[in-house]
Amino acid sequence: MILEKTFVDSITYRPGAVILYPGKSDMLYRVQSGLVRIHTMDDDGNGLTLRYVKPGEFFGEESLAGLERTYFAEAVTDSTVDVMNPALLSAEDNLEVTTHLVRILSRAYESIYRLVGKRLKSRIAAELLELSETALATRQPSGELMIYATHDELAAAVGSVRETVTKVVGELAREGVIGAGYGKITLKNTEALKEIASQ
Amino acid sequence: MILEKTFVDSITYRPGAVILYPGKSDMLYRVQSGLVRIHTMDDDGNGLTLRYVKPGEFFGEESLAGLERTYFAEAVTDSTVDVMNPALLSAEDNLEVTTHLVRILSRAYESIYRLVGKRLKSRIAAELLELSETALATRQPSGELMIYATHDELAAAVGSVRETVTKVVGELAREGVIGAGYGKITLKNTEALKEIASQ
Repeated sequence: MILEKTFVDSITYRPGAVILYPGKSDMLYRVQSGLVRIHTMDDDGNGLTLRYVKPGEFFGEESLAGLERTYFAEAVTDSTVDVMNPALLSAEDNLEVTTHLVRILSRAYESIYRLVGKRLKSRIAAELLELSETALATRQPSGELMIYATHDELAAAVGSVRETVTKVVGELAREGVIGAGYGKITLKNTEALKEIASQ
Repeated sequence: MILEKTFVDSITYRPGAVILYPGKSDMLYRVQSGLVRIHTMDDDGNGLTLRYVKPGEFFGEESLAGLERTYFAEAVTDSTVDVMNPALLSAEDNLEVTTHLVRILSRAYESIYRLVGKRLKSRIAAELLELSETALATRQPSGELMIYATHDELAAAVGSVRETVTKVVGELAREGVIGAGYGKITLKNTEALKEIASQ
């Protein structure tokens, strides 16, 4: 449990608001509610999602090492973010942050593994499963999970382009694994999706 | 400076020796001398290098979070490794480990960025520059740096296959940027290599 004195502020952002730009900061950030996207941009301005930060998770970890931040942090849904002073973290807090760092490092390596070894279809399936555990997913009356994500957003997350993602999403929809609508995707067969993600 | 009592053991490995297999461990490891390669393997047994660990750097960080290790650690050159008990790390030590984690996370994100956005030629150039700062590089009497690395090893590091790497290495050699021999590469024009890496 992080001590009260460590908290500097708590700020709520609207969807699409940029929380952090590349640069330097002395603060550490934790998502209280909502969903934050950490992304970078190539020379042509194409976004590349590095990770999603869910409630209870941290971002801005480079402040712990005095390093420069090379990414953007953006609110995906309405998001409340705690601003913390890393110098005031207790030993216990630090362990929490370290555990988090180990987890996101392991996720980053998984992304590398998938980018190199997996087909785009597997990468999209894995991404949909990951998004299904975030604030972008809502349970439908039918019991199915619906994910709010455009093909552009999926492309940024799996390192591809919209046109190709649209083709693969169509393929998954024809196979009955997902239902695809404008800006949203319904998971119809989670087991099949897991199978595809592992291929 | 890490306290004496934290050290459990110090072990020297020969080139090619596997230090850690995927699995669980309670220990944290630090390279004292040499070079350690962290890699994973796809279903077909192809290696994928996740990072190189240089003297002073850590691996086995998943023990800090009680997580399972999904990678192999292998000695590249003669390497001495300190085995440490993470439970006995001081607050100061923990900060050192945290700083290291932030750095390797940032490197992992850079790899993702390169895998998605950069041409293979840029990735190979960046990899050669990174290797030039490890124990795999030796300064020649001519003043040039020579790197001991096979095309297979380069392919594993940049997420490609040997045949394609051989083609690109040949191209870089024809351009006079590097000199290529069996299992070794000489950096002839570091500035040009940096320029290619950034493209």
